[in-house]
Amino acid sequence: MPIGFIGLGIMGSRMAANLKKAGYDLMIYNRTREKADPLIKAGAQWCDNPAQLAEKVDILFTMLAHPEAVSQIALGDIGFLDNMRPDGIWVDCSTVNPSFTKAMAAEAQKRRIRFVDAPVLGTKKPAREGQLVFFAGGEKEDVATLRPYFEIMGKAVKHVGDHGMGASFKMVVNLLVAQNVVIFSEAVALGRALGFSQEMLFDMLLDGPMAAPYLSVKRPKFEDGNFEADFPLKWMHKDLHLVALTAYEKGVALPTTNVAKEVFLQAKQAGLGEKDFAAIFDYLSSGNKS
Amino acid sequence: MPIGFIGLGIMGSRMAANLKKAGYDLMIYNRTREKADPLIKAGAQWCDNPAQLAEKVDILFTMLAHPEAVSQIALGDIGFLDNMRPDGIWVDCSTVNPSFTKAMAAEAQKRRIRFVDAPVLGTKKPAREGQLVFFAGGEKEDVATLRPYFEIMGKAVKHVGDHGMGASFKMVVNLLVAQNVVIFSEAVALGRALGFSQEMLFDMLLDGPMAAPYLSVKRPKFEDGNFEADFPLKWMHKDLHLVALTAYEKGVALPTTNVAKEVFLQAKQAGLGEKDFAAIFDYLSSGNKS
Amino acid sequence: MPIGFIGLGIMGSRMAANLKKAGYDLMIYNRTREKADPLIKAGAQWCDNPAQLAEKVDILFTMLAHPEAVSQIALGDIGFLDNMRPDGIWVDCSTVNPSFTKAMAAEAQKRRIRFVDAPVLGTKKPAREGQLVFFAGGEKEDVATLRPYFEIMGKAVKHVGDHGMGASFKMVVNLLVAQNVVIFSEAVALGRALGFSQEMLFDMLLDGPMAAPYLSVKRPKFEDGNFEADFPLKWMHKDLHLVALTAYEKGVALPTTNVAKEVFLQAKQAGLGEKDFAAIFDYLSSGNKS
Amino acid sequence: MPIGFIGLGIMGSRMAANLKKAGYDLMIYNRTREKADPLIKAGAQWCDNPAQLAEKVDILFTMLAHPEAVSQIALGDIGFLDNMRPDGIWVDCSTVNPSFTKAMAAEAQKRRIRFVDAPVLGTKKPAREGQLVFFAGGEKEDVATLRPYFEIMGKAVKHVGDHGMGASFKMVVNLLVAQNVVIFSEAVALGRALGFSQEMLFDMLLDGPMAAPYLSVKRPKFEDGNFEADFPLKWMHKDLHLVALTAYEKGVALPTTNVAKEVFLQAKQAGLGEKDFAAIFDYLSSGNKS
Repeated sequence: MPIGFIGLGIMGSRMAANLKKAGYDLMIYNRTREKADPLIKAGAQWCDNPAQLAEKVDILFTMLAHPEAVSQIALGDIGFLDNMRPDGIWVDCSTVNPSFTKAMAAEAQKRRIRFVDAPVLGTKKPAREGQLVFFAGGEKEDVATLRPYFEIMGKAVKHVGDHGMGASFKMVVNLLVAQNVVIFSEAVALGRALGFSQEMLFDMLLDGPMAAPYLSVKRPKFEDGNFEADFPLKWMHKDLHLVALTAYEKGVALPTTNVAKEVFLQAKQAGLGEKDFAAIFDYLSSGNKS
Repeated sequence: MPIGFIGLGIMGSRMAANLKKAGYDLMIYNRTREKADPLIKAGAQWCDNPAQLAEKVDILFTMLAHPEAVSQIALGDIGFLDNMRPDGIWVDCSTVNPSFTKAMAAEAQKRRIRFVDAPVLGTKKPAREGQLVFFAGGEKEDVATLRPYFEIMGKAVKHVGDHGMGASFKMVVNLLVAQNVVIFSEAVALGRALGFSQEMLFDMLLDGPMAAPYLSVKRPKFEDGNFEADFPLKWMHKDLHLVALTAYEKGVALPTTNVAKEVFLQAKQAGLGEKDFAAIFDYLSSGNKS
Repeated sequence: MPIGFIGLGIMGSRMAANLKKAGYDLMIYNRTREKADPLIKAGAQWCDNPAQLAEKVDILFTMLAHPEAVSQIALGDIGFLDNMRPDGIWVDCSTVNPSFTKAMAAEAQKRRIRFVDAPVLGTKKPAREGQLVFFAGGEKEDVATLRPYFEIMGKAVKHVGDHGMGASFKMVVNLLVAQNVVIFSEAVALGRALGFSQEMLFDMLLDGPMAAPYLSVKRPKFEDGNFEADFPLKWMHKDLHLVALTAYEKGVALPTTNVAKEVFLQAKQAGLGEKDFAAIFDYLSSGNKS
Repeated sequence: MPIGFIGLGIMGSRMAANLKKAGYDLMIYNRTREKADPLIKAGAQWCDNPAQLAEKVDILFTMLAHPEAVSQIALGDIGFLDNMRPDGIWVDCSTVNPSFTKAMAAEAQKRRIRFVDAPVLGTKKPAREGQLVFFAGGEKEDVATLRPYFEIMGKAVKHVGDHGMGASFKMVVNLLVAQNVVIFSEAVALGRALGFSQEMLFDMLLDGPMAAPYLSVKRPKFEDGNFEADFPLKWMHKDLHLVALTAYEKGVALPTTNVAKEVFLQAKQAGLGEKDFAAIFDYLSSGNKS
């Protein structure tokens, strides 16, 4: 039985390619068809719409940009949810907010479709190399059923709780991903203005006790100023919006994260939306260059 | 020739004790005399005021709470600076702002006193165990002269530049120290509200790619809620104020750090000033407990 | 033909009472029935659910707490929208976000129901005295049809545009309402700490060029510290959330308003949610009292 | 006996001109001499330095850009304070922080010079037209002595307390001046993005209950986008820095004002420093134009 994969952007195209490479039959769909071409060449089968695709698979992965896209693809006029077979599993790997995920889980359950939320940690390179980490929320058996697929696309899968807990954990993680680069950028901007070379600051701070280890991965981007997107800044802005929305729903005050959200928006307004989110470094340093 | 040490708080008392233990003669002074008692018992010699102390030493360390204290002790009515011998070295280990440090260096130079700024990374325990890291700003020869003393009190000394650059680097580091605990606290507050146990969050996040390694040191405090001060929250608030002041002088915008500064003040107003600065974790979580 | 009114909280109960007093037959519904008792005594007719009410009226006002409540009452299992007669008018006076309002307008239009969004400026007292200001969005004829009712409940109705523009204007206004009290509170907190009496600050600043005129209305609350709710702080927090949500949808950066949103949440966490939103003054001053 | 006036920028030049026009003999000094030319032509007498000027006057006004400038002119090598006659009055109209003002008052008193802090409300036009408002801190008799001069340069003088209270009140006022334009800008940015014309928003909001009356003065600048400086944005940024500094000294948390401070800095970095501070409107709207 083939597997379905909907959403072939930076992440989804690489995740699906790994499933294909591992020998699975793939049914694919994407809003803009051109992005599917490499996969089609590799043997995946194009479906004209989500509804059509749903009829041909038991396991359907989605990897989409935001809740609105997920909702449209799942529940829209040619959505897949009304067309999946009972007991099929919908695995949503999109980064969306937990309350939305729980609503999707409920929609799935209404139709006797099983649901697992499984957002990922990792961007373009880990996606390509099958080194993602999945945070899975849902039934134990369902996560177990999916484990072989997760292990092709990733290096680890962590079952963090019931429906929505994968999405919940992703909120926590992305808050940290975004904020770590913001505070590091503020620190380096200050350090440079005080007369330290960027190189010295990187050497002293990265891999040290005061910097999250993942920041070292971004060092080449910080250094050469080429912020080709592994994960576009505009999506990080969206994720911080979802974090703020979730915090509102839960009554959690996030004073600095809400400010970081606005800084990402300012950077997006300044034209950095399609750059890697690490370009926030550039945005926060720019005032001190001239 | 004995060494002078002024400022015997949480940090200074332990640093001076290590010098004493290493066999150096110590002349000491502190605003409140009682804090000097253990050192006096250990053989250090009390001086009635900074001016008197200055006459007896060639190398004088200060470890004080803020610029006003340093200024008072160095340049006040019974300050030491007018009483040091030419070519003596004043080593200021206090965390103060770089422009203040440069002014102190200039005051010292006017009197032909050599000056090194050498703030430290590390709190109570590393101070006691001689495991501090010094960031030294000043002349190469002077830093070399001081190296034996630094190596008794610390595990490393990094000569980061000219006068004021030690203080400058400390600003950068403390921005990160404060901000890392703030963003981690916001992340955990959100995670708990979403249903994760604190233990699970610590296990998943600490020592991982998204958390600065030093945060693990604070884990016991986060867990048992006993925030006995290694470094009091009120001093971290002061340091963030000095960071903001320095950023103003240099024209660097720090949108999230300025907010963190206010959050630390709110926590201080809520009665946490004498607790360890890691109690900001408690402050940022408190809204979600009830 | 009677008029329908759903939502009998602080605002709705007083607005409906004015319609009743003006001689209109009223069909009423509220989630908790007790709040309807005074109106029932005054002759209004209770309906057991929104669906039932809808069948008896051509014009239906709603005044509810948030989008979720509106959605539930309009589109839930016993919602009114499926039961209104074609060409009836639904007037939503709730403060909700424009994109939600537009969705409601579309749901109404699908069922050939006319829709006007008409949120109000004013709290308890103007509601009681028929001195509200309505910001109406919708068709010109519909607003004209409703004018007599608006004029009973209010002193002015401003037709600000098409569907959703009433809600849009309310977002702009409530941003200002909330922010004006925040900045005034910060100013007074500073002034008091600098040694000015609160009375002097009020005398010098209120009714002056630097304070929004409406702040004078809150002076008695600021002075006696009795923050009985005209408009509860928790709803202002909700409104700032809707402002932030709307700004996100439109790509507008609101750096200070997002911080104000978090301050309102902190005040809510501190137990001020049911107080008047002007209690933010108390919250922002509290650190300086002790 | 002539009057001294030091500091002939946008404000000082106009204030001094009014004193001259009223018939007083003026001794003047300014860091850059060219700015004094119009006054010299009008009959004022140039002095080569502050010390020289001090010898010729009993009353000396200063109107300078920031504390550092005041300190330099008063206490520098050719400063005036050591050269004024006992019982002379130094009137500092500069906007500086209260703790600095108190230090200056103490320096004056040490030399038996009387001191009054008298910062002003009003920018270029009121300065030219003698319509400023003075907030005076100091001895009652001294303020009375100065009243005739204040009344030439202004329309009102408010004796708000002892030394430093004039400066203190100015902090409170400028917090409001800056913040009012920030919150209004955020509101209009949101309103425009929601589809309202700028004109409609101005008509509905300015002169209404939700906008500080002074904002109407800025309407022409908002409308034609010509932000020629009445009061440069860079000085407002400096003032917000002094507000933050003062709040720190007094332990007052100002969460939104600290963010506004950073927004002004970002606007300055974007090249708006020499524009009127109302250009923050332009900065906060700019993201939504394209």
